[in-house]
Amino acid sequence: MFQTFEAPGAAADRSARLSRLRAELARRGLDGFLVPRADAHQGEYVPPSDARLAWLTGFTGSAGVATVLADRAALFIDGRYTLQARQQADGALWSLQPLHEAPVGAWIAGAAKAGAKIGFDPWLHGLTEIEALRARLAAAGMEAAPVEGNPLDAVWEDRPAPPAAPIRPYPDALAGRSAAEKREIVAAAIRAAGADAAALTLPDSVAWLLNIRGDDLPRLPAPLVFALIDAAGAVTLFLRPGQEAEGLRAHLGEGVAIRPRDEFEAAVGGLCGKALLLDGQSAPFALFRAAEGGGARIAKGDDPCRLPKAIKTEAEAAGAREAHLRDGAAMARFLCWLDREAPGGGLTEIAIAKRLEAERRATNALMDISFDSIVGSGPNGAIVHYRVTEATDRRLSPGELMLIDSGGQYLDGTTDITRTVTVGFPPEGAARAFTLVLKAMIAVTIARFPEGTTGRDIDTLARAPLWRAGLDYDHGTGHGVGAYLGVHEGPQSLSRRGTVPLRAGMICSNEPGYYRTGAFGIRIENLVLVEGPSVPEGGERPMLGFETLTLCPIDRRLIDPALLGRAERDWLNAYHARVEAALAPLLGEAERAWLGKACAAL
Amino acid sequence: MFQTFEAPGAAADRSARLSRLRAELARRGLDGFLVPRADAHQGEYVPPSDARLAWLTGFTGSAGVATVLADRAALFIDGRYTLQARQQADGALWSLQPLHEAPVGAWIAGAAKAGAKIGFDPWLHGLTEIEALRARLAAAGMEAAPVEGNPLDAVWEDRPAPPAAPIRPYPDALAGRSAAEKREIVAAAIRAAGADAAALTLPDSVAWLLNIRGDDLPRLPAPLVFALIDAAGAVTLFLRPGQEAEGLRAHLGEGVAIRPRDEFEAAVGGLCGKALLLDGQSAPFALFRAAEGGGARIAKGDDPCRLPKAIKTEAEAAGAREAHLRDGAAMARFLCWLDREAPGGGLTEIAIAKRLEAERRATNALMDISFDSIVGSGPNGAIVHYRVTEATDRRLSPGELMLIDSGGQYLDGTTDITRTVTVGFPPEGAARAFTLVLKAMIAVTIARFPEGTTGRDIDTLARAPLWRAGLDYDHGTGHGVGAYLGVHEGPQSLSRRGTVPLRAGMICSNEPGYYRTGAFGIRIENLVLVEGPSVPEGGERPMLGFETLTLCPIDRRLIDPALLGRAERDWLNAYHARVEAALAPLLGEAERAWLGKACAAL
Repeated sequence: MFQTFEAPGAAADRSARLSRLRAELARRGLDGFLVPRADAHQGEYVPPSDARLAWLTGFTGSAGVATVLADRAALFIDGRYTLQARQQADGALWSLQPLHEAPVGAWIAGAAKAGAKIGFDPWLHGLTEIEALRARLAAAGMEAAPVEGNPLDAVWEDRPAPPAAPIRPYPDALAGRSAAEKREIVAAAIRAAGADAAALTLPDSVAWLLNIRGDDLPRLPAPLVFALIDAAGAVTLFLRPGQEAEGLRAHLGEGVAIRPRDEFEAAVGGLCGKALLLDGQSAPFALFRAAEGGGARIAKGDDPCRLPKAIKTEAEAAGAREAHLRDGAAMARFLCWLDREAPGGGLTEIAIAKRLEAERRATNALMDISFDSIVGSGPNGAIVHYRVTEATDRRLSPGELMLIDSGGQYLDGTTDITRTVTVGFPPEGAARAFTLVLKAMIAVTIARFPEGTTGRDIDTLARAPLWRAGLDYDHGTGHGVGAYLGVHEGPQSLSRRGTVPLRAGMICSNEPGYYRTGAFGIRIENLVLVEGPSVPEGGERPMLGFETLTLCPIDRRLIDPALLGRAERDWLNAYHARVEAALAPLLGEAERAWLGKACAAL
Repeated sequence: MFQTFEAPGAAADRSARLSRLRAELARRGLDGFLVPRADAHQGEYVPPSDARLAWLTGFTGSAGVATVLADRAALFIDGRYTLQARQQADGALWSLQPLHEAPVGAWIAGAAKAGAKIGFDPWLHGLTEIEALRARLAAAGMEAAPVEGNPLDAVWEDRPAPPAAPIRPYPDALAGRSAAEKREIVAAAIRAAGADAAALTLPDSVAWLLNIRGDDLPRLPAPLVFALIDAAGAVTLFLRPGQEAEGLRAHLGEGVAIRPRDEFEAAVGGLCGKALLLDGQSAPFALFRAAEGGGARIAKGDDPCRLPKAIKTEAEAAGAREAHLRDGAAMARFLCWLDREAPGGGLTEIAIAKRLEAERRATNALMDISFDSIVGSGPNGAIVHYRVTEATDRRLSPGELMLIDSGGQYLDGTTDITRTVTVGFPPEGAARAFTLVLKAMIAVTIARFPEGTTGRDIDTLARAPLWRAGLDYDHGTGHGVGAYLGVHEGPQSLSRRGTVPLRAGMICSNEPGYYRTGAFGIRIENLVLVEGPSVPEGGERPMLGFETLTLCPIDRRLIDPALLGRAERDWLNAYHARVEAALAPLLGEAERAWLGKACAAL
């Protein structure tokens, strides 16, 4: 079982930890210190060795930063974590602050004394963040100073060792492109940016570039490594000793050198006279300092792997189709079981999550789940980032909706699917809302659009049917998805902030929703692959479009056919016919019978 | 008759004019000079006294710039004017250049010699434009220098006198807000921008601010004046002697001083130590120079009148409804006449344009047309900015489409409407395309959307039905419309470049189209007023929406009902019922009968 369900406990010694940190800060002459949730790789997951924020505050959410002054301390979190932070962080020690409304710098400016020196670990913050902090503190006569050696680590006595799992090669046949080809693509991007080299700090960028995978983190099969790549495509990979698996050098081949991880900073510092491409958001401040100190010129720009990584090869697209077929069959088995068992009223959310993971494991191809399943029954479905624990587990009853958002990591692809089903008769208003969400999902699915269309444009098409009904959802419509890599990846985003044009080969989630607090949550999610451009029949101009990858029935019992237009009903019936044809051969007799009913034409 | 139909002639003496200008440049020690189409007010229309580009090159389009060097000269125009520029400008004198692909600075850098000094009139260019030019020329070792006194004016012997029509008061009752209230609104915006004053150079901004109108230009009833407004709302209006009509001082009241137009620059130069709000796009470079030279601090920002002007008052909205009722009746009379006469095959485009203007004049309320009518029969309908002249006039035949885009300036509002009708049986493919364009227009009309939604978002909703069919149109979906002011006004824009959020009270055009070169053009245009926010029935969140102002039948003979969804058909039938109920009482018996058929339910 990958997923666990322990309720995060409030440890007893947070107060002592905070005191020890304060003593260490005083010893170093610091008036304050920042403890972010991030590690040097700025990813969604951090290994236990970097879980500083959780160790200090007890808060285990995926975003946040603590600010420790001598006489007070604050924990900055975003809106979705307010409840969790209240439960996990001791209110006597930590003042909770909204991360987006009250920036850290403004709080320090009001809370610390003039002349205060606030430390930060230059490996844990990006340049943009530090520039904003420094400007704000300077205006208040204070200083933000990088520290040498994290003072929290100095007082963290039982700090776990950093992970260093052996790096695995990823087959060229699945990637569809050799690492040498990818290195040339990225080298060309570096040259186009007028730079001589780029420093890569995002694990999935390096994993993609070199056709390698790793096991340092849950859910994300990328190794925690750094890399430097020059404008001729030569790469130096910086890793921990344990990461260098047997055969790795042979897999990486010529043009890729291996050096110890702790030589990365010096290597960046040795680029005197060169122009170094660095990502202002994700590259640690320490690298900007090292590069400038070493006489390099800094070219700020996006990580040059992000865009080519997002544009899948034919082989990656084919792998994604295979993975979705396998995953769809597992989902169908699961939903068939759920339909049979749920009306009895005996199922809990944890039992459902376990069964779902078991179905995926039974494919014998599951490398990991792609994120902790969101299994929200009844009112829990309305909590967008709900993660069931022993403390919150809830029994599913007839007359309720069940929302399940989950996915698998397979060698040939990453999946992410949400289905919302009814147990018995749906609650009042649920069918209308479900049908409106379905219209939103279909609006994206059947959209055609010219080159240059952005994620925001697609997000608008999704929301239009809900907006007309006076409804909306407070999350994006979709995110990029990796190829046996991160289930969330950029640069594309189907959201209000999606400014990147969509390109053929990008995989996105398509997951509009509706949430009625205290009652139910609805989300329907398919993954789609941008395809084309091609000229639609009877048309004149080439248009991009979406191929739906996800294969799994959408609960017909929740659809009000009167609210669907002809094009929508036609799409749904064609989709269900396709799902049935694809999945039926993979299922047993009982499941096939269930599938036939679930996929019947509307 | 407001509209005229002369074909623009190619004057014989362009070559001599160019030679005289070159001699004058040589006399002043200039190696080159820019002649833009714009005047100091950067508007859509320029008076004859400022038609320098047309005088020099013969080109009469509404955008462009000429660059004159000693040995060569270029005319920069955008794509829609390629054909017209070829016809009007002598190819032996002028090299045609695409304005957006090859910026002026790059061309000069390649064409002039190192050390060249290129003059420009500081009143005819904005700061942003000049900064880009200077940077490009500096990189080539050249200089862009402002001139004192335009050298073209020095050789333009029969230059017309500038217009100076008496300024008319605009009733507070129609504006819905006194000038004193508006001055306080703008003063508050100036204070919010941290400035002490703003210089206003856009005629419709000043007209709106002071509740005045003018007759210096065709189509735009705003006087060509400048103004300064300070952070307390005190205004100085700079005008030509002839503009000061009897009673103007009394209308303007306390708090508004009148000074001669030629004192404007000195007034801006006298703001030592003050922060002056200037619009980088529209304010002449001369003002930036004067302000900086005088010791003012410059705060770059939007003209502070643009946003409040765009958000109509209740009185302006009521006036717009009245104007559209009157205009809709004129349109109905016109379309009834067209339906009766066109099948005979005897009508020309000019005859149609004349009849249309006559119907509007017959309302006895028409102050002007709001732009030159676009009357495109058959293939001429596919020319988006077509303007019929004696040289292009064409007879309309059965089996063709007729596209008519026109509008009126009434004291209570400005109208802009496009209808496309068929004469006899429509050409092959026209009904499908018309219905798809109608779907695009309805998608905007029935959209609901939250605060923060931009014009680009609405543009996307309009294009989606056409994109799905592989069709599109190469212009925006809509523009802002003034209240007895410019038929094109900002800051909102329903287009790919529309980044400004829509606000309740804004009036926009909604005019998707489709153009089949050499065959026909289709455009359907209504004006809409942003209304709300209110919570849609059965919904939870407040949403903005659109009230349709335009009242005129949409040609049912061009609609393929099978392509419409239920919501679309419902909207169309309800609209036609509303149009019939509103217009029938204003029409004679024959026209009423025609209207009844034109508005029958689908």
